Amino acid sequence: MPGAVAIEYLHNFTLIHDDIEDNSPIRHGRPTLWQKWGLAQAVNAGDALFSIAQLAMLGLRETCDEEVALKAIKAFNHTCLHLIRGQYLDIAFESSQDIDVSTYLVMIEGKTAALIGFSTLLGGLTAHVEERQLGLLEEFGSSLGMAFQIQDDYLGIWGDPQKTGKSAATDLLTRKKSLPILFGLQQSETFKHFWNEEEISAENVDTLADQLVACGAQDFVQTKAQQFTEKAFKALDELFPTENEYLNALYELTETLLNRNS
Amino acid sequence: MPGAVAIEYLHNFTLIHDDIEDNSPIRHGRPTLWQKWGLAQAVNAGDALFSIAQLAMLGLRETCDEEVALKAIKAFNHTCLHLIRGQYLDIAFESSQDIDVSTYLVMIEGKTAALIGFSTLLGGLTAHVEERQLGLLEEFGSSLGMAFQIQDDYLGIWGDPQKTGKSAATDLLTRKKSLPILFGLQQSETFKHFWNEEEISAENVDTLADQLVACGAQDFVQTKAQQFTEKAFKALDELFPTENEYLNALYELTETLLNRNS
Repeated sequence: MPGAVAIEYLHNFTLIHDDIEDNSPIRHGRPTLWQKWGLAQAVNAGDALFSIAQLAMLGLRETCDEEVALKAIKAFNHTCLHLIRGQYLDIAFESSQDIDVSTYLVMIEGKTAALIGFSTLLGGLTAHVEERQLGLLEEFGSSLGMAFQIQDDYLGIWGDPQKTGKSAATDLLTRKKSLPILFGLQQSETFKHFWNEEEISAENVDTLADQLVACGAQDFVQTKAQQFTEKAFKALDELFPTENEYLNALYELTETLLNRNS
Repeated sequence: MPGAVAIEYLHNFTLIHDDIEDNSPIRHGRPTLWQKWGLAQAVNAGDALFSIAQLAMLGLRETCDEEVALKAIKAFNHTCLHLIRGQYLDIAFESSQDIDVSTYLVMIEGKTAALIGFSTLLGGLTAHVEERQLGLLEEFGSSLGMAFQIQDDYLGIWGDPQKTGKSAATDLLTRKKSLPILFGLQQSETFKHFWNEEEISAENVDTLADQLVACGAQDFVQTKAQQFTEKAFKALDELFPTENEYLNALYELTETLLNRNS
């Protein structure tokens, strides 16, 4: 429980600072902290939540032995650095013209996969599983996080608007540098020209999405999501050679996350 | 050593975020991090340094037993919260007309005294001193920090310009809400009127400083600094009933800090 609480605090701390860094005035339909209380107080409040997350991790002293608690706190802070590295790349991408697909994957590994990988690792650490299983747990969470984010990028262009609740090809309309778009910019001169020279609107967005399909972006993204999903399932299978309720729960979680439409 | 390194990282992390929160473009004659790399990267770099400080604290595992390391990490994060609380008050003061002298003392307790109190506490923790001595060590550092900051506020108005390297009564000219000024605003209608209604310049700043002396602000600030200095020395005397080299070193440090002119 202390670990779960710490992860929730950590996640919310990063959201407070991310909203500042992205200059986002709204999150989930409500004003962001900096928008409501000003930049200075919001940076400081984020720092407070980060300290509180560390103190929550120290609560593991009550539920685990000291060695495990210290190991968990160390992994927690390495995860923080991993998240921060992803965020560094994300900010740097804002002002960058050419972003490599492989650098993008490193970025989402930090921004999305690291925290999920730590969550599954921490469960194992506090349950005193073997070293080999710790590695598999982290690999499961991290691969699941990668598959989840890539799926998200897929849905941002080819998701069904009725199911996602967003307009069709929303990531094209908002010019978000997501995986299919970066692939298109790297592989298709036609797409790159259109992207750089034209206004993108509801009228021409389908043409642009079709160009992405034509240059192989859709296949590439689907394959990548599939690869990470398989990696996640493979780690699960190695973790639990025989079927049990934990395996079933993690399988179900994975399938729910990856087969969603929104 | 890991603790000393962590304190240095922590201090520098707070400087990075403070410069953002205070909108300061320059520190020690050089551009601040946000000024050079942009707000987003600077907030994120501060977060990185905070994580690195936590990892440095974990280095205590190598030099202390696990119980001491965990205790030290807990005190470290409580100190962070104390600093952040001081910073919260400092930011809130910016837009506040009436700041109480007692609230100001709470603010500098967080912004200045807490980190010095933790530094002296941590020395004792890692040297395995008794619980009673830990309290005295923290009290020594914290009182020293208070005396130091109040002395700083004193010098900001009555310091000798040739020794401080700043113009005379610099805190009046820059309208810094320091302790003597807050005392004057609370105690003297004459000072309050002048402060609120007049432009403050090199020509009339001496009159304003004289008003502060007249209403007792100079005496008040000197007495406060003296009280905290005595509290620091008293903690030292209780720590070391007989003279020894550590006592002498801490005495010397205290006197050097408090008898400085700049």
